[in-house]
Amino acid sequence: MIKQNLGRLENVYNQLDKLNLDGFFVSHQPNITYLTGFNSRDAYLLITKNKNFFITDFRYWYEAKKYLKGFYLKKINGSIFSLIVNLSKSLKIKRLGFETKYLSHAEYEKIKEGLLNLGIEFIGVWDLVEHLREIKSQEELKNIKKAIQINIETFKYARRIIKPGLSERQIAYKLEGFIKNQGAKPAFEIIVAGGKNSSFCHYISGDYKIKNNDIVLIDMGVEYNGYKSDLTRVFFLGKIPFIFKKIYQIVKEAQSMAIKNIKKDITIDKIDKIARNYIKNKGWGKFFGHALGHGVGLEIHEEPYVSSKNKDTIKKDMVFTLEPAIYLPDRFGIRIEDMIRFDGEKAEVLSAALDK
Amino acid sequence: MIKQNLGRLENVYNQLDKLNLDGFFVSHQPNITYLTGFNSRDAYLLITKNKNFFITDFRYWYEAKKYLKGFYLKKINGSIFSLIVNLSKSLKIKRLGFETKYLSHAEYEKIKEGLLNLGIEFIGVWDLVEHLREIKSQEELKNIKKAIQINIETFKYARRIIKPGLSERQIAYKLEGFIKNQGAKPAFEIIVAGGKNSSFCHYISGDYKIKNNDIVLIDMGVEYNGYKSDLTRVFFLGKIPFIFKKIYQIVKEAQSMAIKNIKKDITIDKIDKIARNYIKNKGWGKFFGHALGHGVGLEIHEEPYVSSKNKDTIKKDMVFTLEPAIYLPDRFGIRIEDMIRFDGEKAEVLSAALDK
Repeated sequence: MIKQNLGRLENVYNQLDKLNLDGFFVSHQPNITYLTGFNSRDAYLLITKNKNFFITDFRYWYEAKKYLKGFYLKKINGSIFSLIVNLSKSLKIKRLGFETKYLSHAEYEKIKEGLLNLGIEFIGVWDLVEHLREIKSQEELKNIKKAIQINIETFKYARRIIKPGLSERQIAYKLEGFIKNQGAKPAFEIIVAGGKNSSFCHYISGDYKIKNNDIVLIDMGVEYNGYKSDLTRVFFLGKIPFIFKKIYQIVKEAQSMAIKNIKKDITIDKIDKIARNYIKNKGWGKFFGHALGHGVGLEIHEEPYVSSKNKDTIKKDMVFTLEPAIYLPDRFGIRIEDMIRFDGEKAEVLSAALDK
Repeated sequence: MIKQNLGRLENVYNQLDKLNLDGFFVSHQPNITYLTGFNSRDAYLLITKNKNFFITDFRYWYEAKKYLKGFYLKKINGSIFSLIVNLSKSLKIKRLGFETKYLSHAEYEKIKEGLLNLGIEFIGVWDLVEHLREIKSQEELKNIKKAIQINIETFKYARRIIKPGLSERQIAYKLEGFIKNQGAKPAFEIIVAGGKNSSFCHYISGDYKIKNNDIVLIDMGVEYNGYKSDLTRVFFLGKIPFIFKKIYQIVKEAQSMAIKNIKKDITIDKIDKIARNYIKNKGWGKFFGHALGHGVGLEIHEEPYVSSKNKDTIKKDMVFTLEPAIYLPDRFGIRIEDMIRFDGEKAEVLSAALDK
């Protein structure tokens, strides 16, 4: 058992105490990876203060046996549902928590039925491990910084290779190769959106060929050692029309205002509000429809979500993106995305080395 | 509205009649893609016989508006849950179905609460659209065959480039490039497992360098126009030890037996049984722990699952893999995977052009 994972499990135990639960059933794979240090697929955890079980089937059995430390292994032979029920019984669990956001309704019904017969409560819990994951350890920060560094190098490479005549897909493929040559991989399918396509905020790179005087929006992430980065830049080829410059400045300033105002005790919704109000006051509010940002770590989108709904206070070593944008349908879109760490006093821009 | 999608919706209406439902809430993205012909992400469908709604948020709004035909568009401004509840009310739905395998417990609870207040029943349905998707149309078969063709070309390329000294990851990366140069993409992260690593059945390619006299297992899929293929071959470098040959022959013969015995009216569990019994009778039963195969289409794993649990009768134009295997822990693993279409009378091996 790695010491780090022991600390993480202890944080889970503390939460279980608060919720008066004596067991927790984990089904979301990134949460399992976080708690075990083992790259988990198709597995489950059952956590109690005394014993922790890693539950998986034939396909991952030998891999888990070889590499996973500090957990009892249980092999699924037949129904995972009755296995959970029987295990809960033998561990004398009275109140078992589960991840309400991730367990499907079908899985819930099957497990609940079995537990009910034994008088065991099955209780939906929101965001328990996800909240723990918001605060990054030194080790996690190291991996995230490395992912960002490769991401930045790849943007610099993009600047060198983008030229009229190349298709979005061709550019995306070159960037992917560049990332892989550095021992990492793309954290998601790289978005290269040329011309009008930049106005779609979740575009998929296609056959559109970049033209002279085009705008090219690139949204790209890198995964390094399981940890991710997520950055966006727009490039202009040739002459930059005035309206592009104007919108670009507004988006950039909105981001800058948000960054400057991040300080101790601020609630996260306020950060969103600062950038949003700036864009709104400039008259472009209805063209910025998504949240200002999101946490990044083992998942590309995770807590803390930087949105008007998140009333949590910012905490030291939270890592998140800030990506204000203005999308003008059928014309173009500008989005600028950087990654931020809150150092306890102010925002540290982890991607500061990348020009904008 | 594309005619093909109209037919698909009519198949859904028929199922709703059988289940006595007057509305169906779809949240599984491949099902939405299937029913709309629109590459769906973060969207929902509400289907009734009179009106069909495509529900998405700001991020995909303009894309959907531009490309999606035959559906009313609803933009999510705030809660998706109250939107569904209000829409159900205005459509006078009394019994609304949902996908029990895909809706999370949290989403279920929120929607159910709203519906309950209006006296609307919310009813979990298993596999409705997934079952329709089992039977491939001519158009779908065309895409699948094209994916398989690129996949086979990539295996031939693999045969040419694999040599001692290359790492698993380097090989995987070359294969990926080859696939992309043909206008397709990998359907999943390519598995290249050298030496002992071939004994892990869901291995992730790593830094292991292929040695002389090694076994190299490659499991690779191609996605073309949204449709996928999935094939596995093992390569031997240098001299082939007797035990490798022996195990290889058993796995190959197990697959061949299954293929030969596919005929009209056979139930799918029987196909699994034929291959499994063959391996068992040869004395290696406990080293083949997963199902014999799975459907392939818009998803890499979909119905029909070729397992002992699937009591359905085989139907014309079902497409699935057959992938018997023997994994000897800490030694090596052999898996042979081909793709099959049932032509109404017998198995057509779609990947027959690839040597084994």
